[in-house]
Amino acid sequence: MAEELGITSGKENFTEWYSEVVSKAGIIDQRYPVKGFPVYMPWGMFMVRRVAGMLEKGLEGTGHQPVNFPVVIPAASLSREKEHVKGFEKEVFWITHAGDNELEEKLFLRPTSETAFYPMFSLWVRSHNDMPLKLYQSVQVYRYETKMTKPLMRGREFFWIEAHTAQSTMERAESQIQEDMDIMKGVLSDLAVPFMLFERPSWDRFPGAEVTYAYDTLLPDGRSLQIATTHNLGQKFAKAFGIKFLNEKQEEEYAYQTCFGPGISRMVSALICIHGDDKGLILPPSVAPVQIVIVPIPLKGKEEEVEEKCMDISRKLGKYRVKYDGRNCRPGFKFNEWEMKGVPLRIEIGPRDAEKKEVTIVRRDSGEKYVVPDDDMQAKIRELTDDIFSRMKFGAERKFLAFVSEAGSMKEMEAKLDDGGFVRVPFCSTGREGEECAAKIEGLHAKVRGTLFGRKESLKGTECVACGGPAKHEVYVAKAY
Amino acid sequence: MAEELGITSGKENFTEWYSEVVSKAGIIDQRYPVKGFPVYMPWGMFMVRRVAGMLEKGLEGTGHQPVNFPVVIPAASLSREKEHVKGFEKEVFWITHAGDNELEEKLFLRPTSETAFYPMFSLWVRSHNDMPLKLYQSVQVYRYETKMTKPLMRGREFFWIEAHTAQSTMERAESQIQEDMDIMKGVLSDLAVPFMLFERPSWDRFPGAEVTYAYDTLLPDGRSLQIATTHNLGQKFAKAFGIKFLNEKQEEEYAYQTCFGPGISRMVSALICIHGDDKGLILPPSVAPVQIVIVPIPLKGKEEEVEEKCMDISRKLGKYRVKYDGRNCRPGFKFNEWEMKGVPLRIEIGPRDAEKKEVTIVRRDSGEKYVVPDDDMQAKIRELTDDIFSRMKFGAERKFLAFVSEAGSMKEMEAKLDDGGFVRVPFCSTGREGEECAAKIEGLHAKVRGTLFGRKESLKGTECVACGGPAKHEVYVAKAY
Repeated sequence: MAEELGITSGKENFTEWYSEVVSKAGIIDQRYPVKGFPVYMPWGMFMVRRVAGMLEKGLEGTGHQPVNFPVVIPAASLSREKEHVKGFEKEVFWITHAGDNELEEKLFLRPTSETAFYPMFSLWVRSHNDMPLKLYQSVQVYRYETKMTKPLMRGREFFWIEAHTAQSTMERAESQIQEDMDIMKGVLSDLAVPFMLFERPSWDRFPGAEVTYAYDTLLPDGRSLQIATTHNLGQKFAKAFGIKFLNEKQEEEYAYQTCFGPGISRMVSALICIHGDDKGLILPPSVAPVQIVIVPIPLKGKEEEVEEKCMDISRKLGKYRVKYDGRNCRPGFKFNEWEMKGVPLRIEIGPRDAEKKEVTIVRRDSGEKYVVPDDDMQAKIRELTDDIFSRMKFGAERKFLAFVSEAGSMKEMEAKLDDGGFVRVPFCSTGREGEECAAKIEGLHAKVRGTLFGRKESLKGTECVACGGPAKHEVYVAKAY
Repeated sequence: MAEELGITSGKENFTEWYSEVVSKAGIIDQRYPVKGFPVYMPWGMFMVRRVAGMLEKGLEGTGHQPVNFPVVIPAASLSREKEHVKGFEKEVFWITHAGDNELEEKLFLRPTSETAFYPMFSLWVRSHNDMPLKLYQSVQVYRYETKMTKPLMRGREFFWIEAHTAQSTMERAESQIQEDMDIMKGVLSDLAVPFMLFERPSWDRFPGAEVTYAYDTLLPDGRSLQIATTHNLGQKFAKAFGIKFLNEKQEEEYAYQTCFGPGISRMVSALICIHGDDKGLILPPSVAPVQIVIVPIPLKGKEEEVEEKCMDISRKLGKYRVKYDGRNCRPGFKFNEWEMKGVPLRIEIGPRDAEKKEVTIVRRDSGEKYVVPDDDMQAKIRELTDDIFSRMKFGAERKFLAFVSEAGSMKEMEAKLDDGGFVRVPFCSTGREGEECAAKIEGLHAKVRGTLFGRKESLKGTECVACGGPAKHEVYVAKAY
């Protein structure tokens, strides 16, 4: 069947498989005439909205409020934080003209919105009573990627959410990081996407941040994909943008800030890659645009009974997202198409099912088939829906864990990296002093992803894989997107 | 009370009132450092999402599917439809550089997305079986307005939805216009925003359209505001972009297209203006971010009983959007603030209410106060919520109708225009021949808004107000935003 829809096997060529599946399943159309800017198709848009909705619910449940900042930011704002400008000036799109006029001040499209939000924060924050100020926006951002673009993973326009907070103490800023993590953990669990949360080494921080934490998952080819970050900005941006407040002692102080950026396009990409197979997508029921597809298997002269039963079932399953596929083409074609799109359950209704008061249910994940009396259908579907999710989640976690290994030397590490996944190694330092060792690892086309969140204790008596000097931390290394 | 929040009276100075109310009620912040680009604040964002959600529901209920097209469109696409390019080339923002590089092909920010969608339509439409193709996106668009910008009404970035369809016959394209109208009618009715639907005269069509229909409402200053348009594009764009299909007879034909663009920012603006008063917003319960605010009226020593009762009521009203305002400031301050924000109902709980097992309910629209036994609270709130909406709707319609008049001469028309609203007059022609007469009317700072949708019959025996020649149509004239 896979051949019929002309899809490359993911095991043989993951890159090809991925590029084909996002198009053929109707996630995006890559033929839009500007490089790195895809069209999101209805199936993809549903997932984008669903994932965004899950994150928004988590954010609003913890007191974040929605706002919308302009897509354009004036040139002068970019340069106010000196590390930030260095990090972004090479990758912004510049608006220089409007109509026939040259603009007095150039504008750039938001690559992220610190420089849009924080001048306004300086107007809104006056006293410790105004804090915490917790805002978010669900938007698209623009980055002039010069590396090869890759659908949903590295594009020039992508969907994300960015939450920005101002807090009255450093401790509160740190608690915010924990809160972001809880939100993310909940959402990724619902998507059955395993992850590890790293504190990035100093040379890989967000430009202008004091500390950067990143959520990395692993794709089937063994490479890691960053799907979200959360940054403790300390007082750096507050100083650059003049965000001051009167603390409880009535002293003027700079605000403590955090920002959190879950990448929605990347999360969609991750769930496609992690769960899919050679027939196409396999979607967790929570994000599937259609959860159950009903396909009639008509027989000449019995069309009416079959259609009637399909309609009846469709009504009975009203609380699910159900699609009745009554198109005039052969069932096998429909099976392939809905399998490609990842619909979790298929119900087939033939004249015999109608006669015997039965339904045939087929699982997308395992292909298993069940013939069930009409009266048991609801219970069976509930059971299968739960089971599909548990199985997807368990399977994804098992694969993820199998991809985590450890090594004590460069040679061993290199061998393990060839098998893919994260390799835990002793490392001299994640501060500036470690940069030379990190460069050696980059020579192997791999990256130091950082130390595990919350694992701060220092190592004793082991040696850095790269320089042989005393190792301070265990870091995780991976080939990365 | 109005004075306390420093708001200008709408009757004395509508423009000032509006500008103040959108800021003070927390709809937008106009201090963002790029002209015409406001920040949407949480209260405003809720309404934007709510109105968008109503429209999206209507669109999906009639078979439209969500997509998302890039915000950037290549320069070459703009020039493919010759009337369209003329209409938009003066008002687009141009991206010319990215990082340090000058782009090979300039890109512009979407002012509307015909030139983004239709090159893709030409790839997607092959046969009459692919139609109707009905897609929509809910996005922001960018127009370099050179006229004075006005918050939510005329900005350089605003929220809207655009639905684009390709149909296999002209009749089907015409039915689509009717479907758009039904969606819009439903949503505007739920917002209690009255409107008239006009067929715009030929000189005021969307650039590239065969026919333009526009939804106009009236603001309290008597000026009309266009809040949505729907266009029959005929085959013009299909010819420019090569959107061809095989019809049922297996002959190649160009597709028939329509597009529909409800302006969400403008709809929010309309409902603010139409329903508000000198204390601020008055929101229909359907779009109010908070439907009921509970304000404790504490008395020393009785704080606990009062708070407990507030919490209890808050729980009982769980199906509404309820806010308990427990801030440490005086009740009068809170009353003003929530009245400014337009919350439909306020519940005040003092120690006496707690003792007597009563609640005090206050309506935002009329200021009426009700003291109700606890047991009757739910029923009373249901009743008041319905009544508030009916009264708002009835009131808005009454005002709207009072603003529609008629005139038989320029002089009479001019006098009526000074009173505001639509003036119905006999007019020579809405085709090219009428343009000179329209110019005379524009000399009075008014515009011919068009003929009423569906009123095609020709007049007989009357004379055009402007030239005195035979009048073909009754047109509506108004001062317009």
